[in-house]
Amino acid sequence: MLSSNPVKQPKVRSRPEATRRERRKAEIRKRLFRAAIKLFATRGFTATTIEEITDAADVAKGTFFNYFPTKELLLADIVEFRLEIFRAALVEAERGGAPLRQILHELLYALMSEPGRSPAMARCMIMAPLAGGPVETLAHEIMAKGRQVLSAAIEIGQQRGEIRLDWPADELARLFQQTFYGVLYLYALHSNLRMSHCLDTTFALFWAGIEARTGRPRTSKKRS
Amino acid sequence: MLSSNPVKQPKVRSRPEATRRERRKAEIRKRLFRAAIKLFATRGFTATTIEEITDAADVAKGTFFNYFPTKELLLADIVEFRLEIFRAALVEAERGGAPLRQILHELLYALMSEPGRSPAMARCMIMAPLAGGPVETLAHEIMAKGRQVLSAAIEIGQQRGEIRLDWPADELARLFQQTFYGVLYLYALHSNLRMSHCLDTTFALFWAGIEARTGRPRTSKKRS
Repeated sequence: MLSSNPVKQPKVRSRPEATRRERRKAEIRKRLFRAAIKLFATRGFTATTIEEITDAADVAKGTFFNYFPTKELLLADIVEFRLEIFRAALVEAERGGAPLRQILHELLYALMSEPGRSPAMARCMIMAPLAGGPVETLAHEIMAKGRQVLSAAIEIGQQRGEIRLDWPADELARLFQQTFYGVLYLYALHSNLRMSHCLDTTFALFWAGIEARTGRPRTSKKRS
Repeated sequence: MLSSNPVKQPKVRSRPEATRRERRKAEIRKRLFRAAIKLFATRGFTATTIEEITDAADVAKGTFFNYFPTKELLLADIVEFRLEIFRAALVEAERGGAPLRQILHELLYALMSEPGRSPAMARCMIMAPLAGGPVETLAHEIMAKGRQVLSAAIEIGQQRGEIRLDWPADELARLFQQTFYGVLYLYALHSNLRMSHCLDTTFALFWAGIEARTGRPRTSKKRS
């Protein structure tokens, strides 16, 4: 057994003041997102029609335009949604209420919450950026911006003495993203993978690599 | 800058006694492998014909049968070839001549040597196991067997006091594979990624997470 991890599985943040109507809108938006990501990954962005997206999301075609004027703006919105996850982590780091270890662990969970719904969804997330065209361009944009935001959060952890100082924050941010894609890929391949166990062990290894070491020896703790 | 890594970039092992004819055979075999992986990833295993493979590899169709009686056996051979990389690492660990740090670092390079030829090749390696059918089944087989072999090598490192004992070797082997797929994915997405830098930093983080700690503090070394 791995050493147990004290960080609890984080829940997806929801604003308490959201009205029923707002929640309904957010729900439809998510359904359109999921349908679109699947279609973009399998058929490509250009070949996918708005009607196919609304059919797959099980909403009326006209509804689409209440949410997004164009297919391109739906895509831009997916990007924004992913970036929000990174920004929320940075805000947490800036507030200073939680250790970076917890913030980054929660970030890994939050990033996985959408593709972690099913291995099929994870496959779509993996394939979409490889499909070429505007989806690929935007995927690069998310990764670059996400890395920038994450880098700022990691720097805060370095200043606080929680994260090792001998590596640039930007490099650690890239390694975090890479770690996320590694676990995403394994989950896409192995439908029987226990997601929370996998995220916890993955994060524990990542953290063991980046934490500021205090000099405590670790080898004495032998497994039975 | 990251701290420099003393492990040199390993070369692909070649038996010195190989004759010219053997080398020529190995070369054609590799060309057939590469062509097949690309086609299996883009068109699927079933839809790909032997003629398409030989065309893409630029060899006569009859030549194929000098190497593989069937398309299925070509696929099995690709699996064997990937597994050999893991087995070579285990043999090295058993011989005891090199530290596990070096063996695992070299293993990461060796696993990447084929897909690292180009981002296009890396994409094919990523997509192939997601294509379904016999390719997916065999990809699972490689990963399971590779993990088993790797786990045995890691256990040797644990017995020698080089690798932390508080995590099961099997879990560390999975995390190694996951790490490999993470870097493979990033390389597939970003053609401008410097491969050796990326492999070195990735390995350094992985190793920092799994090494047996001796109690040396790390936080005092501040970057300028």
